[in-house]
Amino acid sequence: MNTKTNNAIGVFDSGIGGLTVVRSLMERLPFENIIYFGDTARVPYGIKSVETINRYAAQITEFLIKKDVKLLIVACNTMAAVAHQSIIDLSPVPVLEVIDASARIATKSTRTKSIGVIGTPATINSNAYTRAIHLLDKEAKVFSQACPLFVPLVEEGWFDHPATKLIVQEYLKPVIAEQIDTLVLGCTHYPLLKPLLQDILGPEVTLIDSAEAMADIAADLINKQNMGNQNCLPPDYVFYVSDLPYRFQTIGERFLGRTLGRVELVSL
Amino acid sequence: MNTKTNNAIGVFDSGIGGLTVVRSLMERLPFENIIYFGDTARVPYGIKSVETINRYAAQITEFLIKKDVKLLIVACNTMAAVAHQSIIDLSPVPVLEVIDASARIATKSTRTKSIGVIGTPATINSNAYTRAIHLLDKEAKVFSQACPLFVPLVEEGWFDHPATKLIVQEYLKPVIAEQIDTLVLGCTHYPLLKPLLQDILGPEVTLIDSAEAMADIAADLINKQNMGNQNCLPPDYVFYVSDLPYRFQTIGERFLGRTLGRVELVSL
Repeated sequence: MNTKTNNAIGVFDSGIGGLTVVRSLMERLPFENIIYFGDTARVPYGIKSVETINRYAAQITEFLIKKDVKLLIVACNTMAAVAHQSIIDLSPVPVLEVIDASARIATKSTRTKSIGVIGTPATINSNAYTRAIHLLDKEAKVFSQACPLFVPLVEEGWFDHPATKLIVQEYLKPVIAEQIDTLVLGCTHYPLLKPLLQDILGPEVTLIDSAEAMADIAADLINKQNMGNQNCLPPDYVFYVSDLPYRFQTIGERFLGRTLGRVELVSL
Repeated sequence: MNTKTNNAIGVFDSGIGGLTVVRSLMERLPFENIIYFGDTARVPYGIKSVETINRYAAQITEFLIKKDVKLLIVACNTMAAVAHQSIIDLSPVPVLEVIDASARIATKSTRTKSIGVIGTPATINSNAYTRAIHLLDKEAKVFSQACPLFVPLVEEGWFDHPATKLIVQEYLKPVIAEQIDTLVLGCTHYPLLKPLLQDILGPEVTLIDSAEAMADIAADLINKQNMGNQNCLPPDYVFYVSDLPYRFQTIGERFLGRTLGRVELVSL
């Protein structure tokens, strides 16, 4: 590796959701500098076409590469599902993405080999989770369900509203019927619905939080490749957004679980 | 007017919702050619900042002006609320927008002068409806409520789902408490929730559909200024979108109430 170990990890997302990945990275890798990019002007990606998602993902990759990051983390499941290869093609540094990370943890966790996956329409329609899980375990059965209303419900902060409960019950009915023992939360917004999802699925179903899965895999890579920051100093966190940061700041702190530091506006 | 009467009416929107305005225009003005632009790559606008909405609205205005439209209709309440002036500044042809149109119909309709307005967070926070209504009637009392979950619910097609009913009840509680006799549906998605809204509000509350209000005001202007198309032939309808038209086509037909004709992709 030519990259300096004190260079930042670049994390990118379609908006706010990737902050759940940043939160897990901060906990697992407390000395790493992090540069985050959230495409808040063009969020959400989950209902856009493959071509548009690829075009936007390439712009963000170029932006972060110019910031000399040592590692790129695609926090957004939708981008990981449809634009992973074009991001790798553009990047001189390693690229990790949430789908592979979550698939690894899910195949290790399941006992019955019946795995449910929930995500945005773009993520589910891409079949990226099914492919990633089958690469690791050919015998696993994957049951997918798009849940387009979860992102707006989470952004509204309705984590345990009776309407949210009804919507969760309706979306999960088909995967519950398949007697899954593991459910992958295939969108960075969904960890905020964890208590409600666990309540509806029952304690015997293991929830795979893609943010935690991502932090585990990133910590592994950094240790194996000796890429860890050797300066044991309080790290720098910088958050770039493509729309004015007011809404990002108010909702973002709910996702990050702490105050956001420097938030800067950039136009791509 | 230098503009030719057989030039098209340009209608623009952040995405699909403006098709409810096109539908009303087709019914009221059956010989007018219509060019529609839906910014489907960057939808929704309702949670973006004022600066970003202005930038995007200017790009769309320039695109439609180049198509030689004779009249511009801002179907999107969010753009009308925050970018109306910058659209007028750029346009050599008359500009009509939904907020003024709905305010006119609402002030004519109310008997008690207690008017409710529902819309996206950007529309409601702009106070554009309150200003427009007070310009027409200083004594009117305006009670506003942002309903951020209505757009995703409508796009999911859940017009009478029990969860939608719970969400409508929660959002409308404060305006019902004010004993309004008129409710402005300040977003082009909302007309698809009309039966449910009427059911919850009761028959004594008049719903003002901004799409119908817009078509009324447009028909008035066209008649007064002798701008009507003199060719009584089947008109041309062209739909431009900024993202691949697959989703626009499937959901759009629900909004338009008929098959979409020519849909073309453009990159702004």
